[in-house]
Amino acid sequence: MSTFNLYLIRHGLAGQHGDYENDRERPLTEEGKRKTRQIAKRLSELDLQFDLILTSPLVRAEQTAEILQEVGLSKHLKEAAYLAPGGNIQTWIDWLEDWKASEKSLALVGHEPDLSTWAETLIWGNAQGKLILKKAGAIGLTLPLSGSPIAHSQLFWLTPPRFFTA
Amino acid sequence: MSTFNLYLIRHGLAGQHGDYENDRERPLTEEGKRKTRQIAKRLSELDLQFDLILTSPLVRAEQTAEILQEVGLSKHLKEAAYLAPGGNIQTWIDWLEDWKASEKSLALVGHEPDLSTWAETLIWGNAQGKLILKKAGAIGLTLPLSGSPIAHSQLFWLTPPRFFTA
Repeated sequence: MSTFNLYLIRHGLAGQHGDYENDRERPLTEEGKRKTRQIAKRLSELDLQFDLILTSPLVRAEQTAEILQEVGLSKHLKEAAYLAPGGNIQTWIDWLEDWKASEKSLALVGHEPDLSTWAETLIWGNAQGKLILKKAGAIGLTLPLSGSPIAHSQLFWLTPPRFFTA
Repeated sequence: MSTFNLYLIRHGLAGQHGDYENDRERPLTEEGKRKTRQIAKRLSELDLQFDLILTSPLVRAEQTAEILQEVGLSKHLKEAAYLAPGGNIQTWIDWLEDWKASEKSLALVGHEPDLSTWAETLIWGNAQGKLILKKAGAIGLTLPLSGSPIAHSQLFWLTPPRFFTA
């Protein structure tokens, strides 16, 4: 069966909730930027290349996605409203149907628990909170090129940043 | 909830099936030994330490476990017949009940599809072949210290060796 690779990447360490009036505006901390850059460089060293990065429109995710793009992981970066917290996976799957006809490697930058919920849904058909995805951590899935990916995807990678950069 | 860490490590690259009369005797290839040693050193650099390594009695698994021990990942290494291909997870869980009362970090060295089947059983309660575990790849799970770990464990790590050593 033909497959393509999907990478789910959680945004890096961001400022404290209470310090920002609007949660959407919380930026990465300096430490968060530094570590995210380190992760991005490692991903690039592994010869990963994304045809497209889709990112949540929240500042901490956008900044993470921009860092991924800066190190050369993708030429293309777009915002996707459904990657904001609480977004619906079906909206993305409808979009995916067209996209995967021509492109083959996709990264999504977003939030928890959404990313691990999406991953479990793609792998298992439903989510039970069984995947631990740390900030700036990554998940790698293979999805079928034809048919619904829900309950038909496989997990080949899940890494906490501490195991990836040490 | 208190948890402990379980690592499932697949044996390295071994000789071809046809070349050995008894499949249990297939050793690691030179390439397999070299890569497994590289992985073992990386695990050690990440400050991993196992209170015990349990290994399948098959030569390719034993050799993998010995390499893990040689780099200092554990002082203790034992064979466990139920880690041979087709072994029953319940036999291990019965053993675990006593062991986890005193020790906290365990590595199992074994075979596919058994290791990923065990991992899926621990995470989701049943196995559907949705985890891809390459030779010398590793899975990291957190298991509850009390009660059955089946369907009550979480996945925090799954890595193909190529993403771990590059």
